[in-house]
Amino acid sequence: MGKILEKEAFGLAAKDESGILSPFSFSRRETGDKDVRFKVLFCGICHTDLSMAKNEWGFTTYPLVPGHEIVGVVTEVGAKVTKFNAGDKVGVGYMAGSCRSCDSCSDGEENYCPKMVLTSGAKDFDDTMTHGGYSDHMVCAEDFIIRIPDNLPLDGAAPLLCAGVTVYSPMKYHGLDKPGMHIGVVGLGGLGHVAVKFAKAIGTKVTVISTSERKRDEAVNRLGADAFLVSRDPKQMEDAMETMDGIIDTVSATHPLLPLLGLLKNKGKLVMVGAPAEPLELPVMPLIFGRKMVVGSMVGGIKETQEMVDLAGKHNITADIELISADYVNTAMERLAKADVKYRFVIDVANTMKPTP
Amino acid sequence: MGKILEKEAFGLAAKDESGILSPFSFSRRETGDKDVRFKVLFCGICHTDLSMAKNEWGFTTYPLVPGHEIVGVVTEVGAKVTKFNAGDKVGVGYMAGSCRSCDSCSDGEENYCPKMVLTSGAKDFDDTMTHGGYSDHMVCAEDFIIRIPDNLPLDGAAPLLCAGVTVYSPMKYHGLDKPGMHIGVVGLGGLGHVAVKFAKAIGTKVTVISTSERKRDEAVNRLGADAFLVSRDPKQMEDAMETMDGIIDTVSATHPLLPLLGLLKNKGKLVMVGAPAEPLELPVMPLIFGRKMVVGSMVGGIKETQEMVDLAGKHNITADIELISADYVNTAMERLAKADVKYRFVIDVANTMKPTP
Repeated sequence: MGKILEKEAFGLAAKDESGILSPFSFSRRETGDKDVRFKVLFCGICHTDLSMAKNEWGFTTYPLVPGHEIVGVVTEVGAKVTKFNAGDKVGVGYMAGSCRSCDSCSDGEENYCPKMVLTSGAKDFDDTMTHGGYSDHMVCAEDFIIRIPDNLPLDGAAPLLCAGVTVYSPMKYHGLDKPGMHIGVVGLGGLGHVAVKFAKAIGTKVTVISTSERKRDEAVNRLGADAFLVSRDPKQMEDAMETMDGIIDTVSATHPLLPLLGLLKNKGKLVMVGAPAEPLELPVMPLIFGRKMVVGSMVGGIKETQEMVDLAGKHNITADIELISADYVNTAMERLAKADVKYRFVIDVANTMKPTP
Repeated sequence: MGKILEKEAFGLAAKDESGILSPFSFSRRETGDKDVRFKVLFCGICHTDLSMAKNEWGFTTYPLVPGHEIVGVVTEVGAKVTKFNAGDKVGVGYMAGSCRSCDSCSDGEENYCPKMVLTSGAKDFDDTMTHGGYSDHMVCAEDFIIRIPDNLPLDGAAPLLCAGVTVYSPMKYHGLDKPGMHIGVVGLGGLGHVAVKFAKAIGTKVTVISTSERKRDEAVNRLGADAFLVSRDPKQMEDAMETMDGIIDTVSATHPLLPLLGLLKNKGKLVMVGAPAEPLELPVMPLIFGRKMVVGSMVGGIKETQEMVDLAGKHNITADIELISADYVNTAMERLAKADVKYRFVIDVANTMKPTP
């Protein structure tokens, strides 16, 4: 750390595997030549924050300041920063750095860089741990800063930085972004409801696939999906066989792939963005008979993220959120664990996050 | 059948689920305006022939004349045939017809046409059953006839019509045909050994992946693979992690996908051309973290098949075969069931197939 000047920062951190968040003071680096410093206004709560806070994946380092769906307003820029100025509305998503020289980085896919630095809870290139957006302010290299369109409300825009690009990136990369195509969305949660909005904005026909009738009204009448399929209803599924060009599968619980593969046309693409912990059963015959594919996708690159946010601006797409104050965050985490949120909690950081007394 | 004149034909047919093949007399349609009639010279024995003969998939109609790796010499062409003449060396592969109007047919992917007519054991558009190449001659629409390059020995060329295009098609379609790429081939059988030859001809680095050391010498020293990996050796697999652009998986037994996904670079493609009867375990995390895909592929379209055979001609690629006489076919089937063949049985039809006494 030696030569790097620091500035005081404060936020909420998990300090052990209870995952309970409590006030935490720390420091952030001085604004480097290519850095942007910004005051955090809002930060979304992604399920990853919960898993990391509780060390569910076994690699959490405490204290952990979560948060990678961050929007704010620029307060200072480094001497060599060219794209941003104080007062700009900006965001940071899942990553805050990468090697910038590997094939993935060269292709604008920093999200697949083996040295990609997560915005929260990861070792940065200077060996410090990164602290996320449940905090008063952020410092981040200009190249990982996203500009937020002026017309978007910033609270609802925050979740786009992770949930938004997670569903947008595979649609774009796999050519599932052509008007007139038919796209299925499995699971109507934080990712799924944004997937419906982007797919509609692009001009595709969108069918939400869910295990029960419960979300039909919400999906069709409020989010604007063209159709709704109950995956446990054989008749409904049969009628929709081989009609879809692609499916965005946001479900992270174990679930059967066979019915989903049946919904795909020849050459259809089943995109996994949820991450089931256990292996799923993959029937190979349906893949072979229809040249179908199952593919994974994880967030998106910086260029893609900017493109996604710009498209959101054009179509007024934001996530549907429940805005909470910082002192509600532990309750929110409990509710999130039960999937009791429609569709994303966002912390009103600037107005409610207080420094350690 | 009314107006369609017929010509006598003979061959070998399975007559019940014993799968035992015995002499069989039948008729083939008169040469239509767009038909090509040819004398069968050689016909490969694909594992599908065995499965169909024994009704392993439950949809076999008896009597069944197997065979869809057929080469021969044209004896007659219809009045409107433009591309072939008597004396031409030709072949027919897995399919003998398709609807010609669906998206798949329009894209030159007749092999994914929902009305695709298999060369053997399927109902044709005139409601007759198709009879395959274990027979003295064939009649087939010009559009499903492949021209065999003059320099290729016809016995070794026969298996290209199915095994060859099965491995070539996905390499081409998924962009795994770029010199300098690194391609894995899982399983060194009828499909695998041809995959190695095509991948080498294209200029890729080829690594054969097998469960034991047994085939190393064969793979590297005779077939020209650049490397050989024993999938059960953790050290060898670890050293090859994330080095491959694509893998052609020809194994039809149940096998783990996790180690194979580990061998792929980001955006790597695992192509399933073997068809395990039971679902395989699909770990989703490796797909997500590397934007990797698992995709199926089934034979290839007519244009692609011609392209593959032409490439084979250019590089003198044929299958390694064991040429057998017609009276050996039941023994060959027994040996095939035990994978006791290197690498394909081909029946010397013209010289050894005799009409029913």
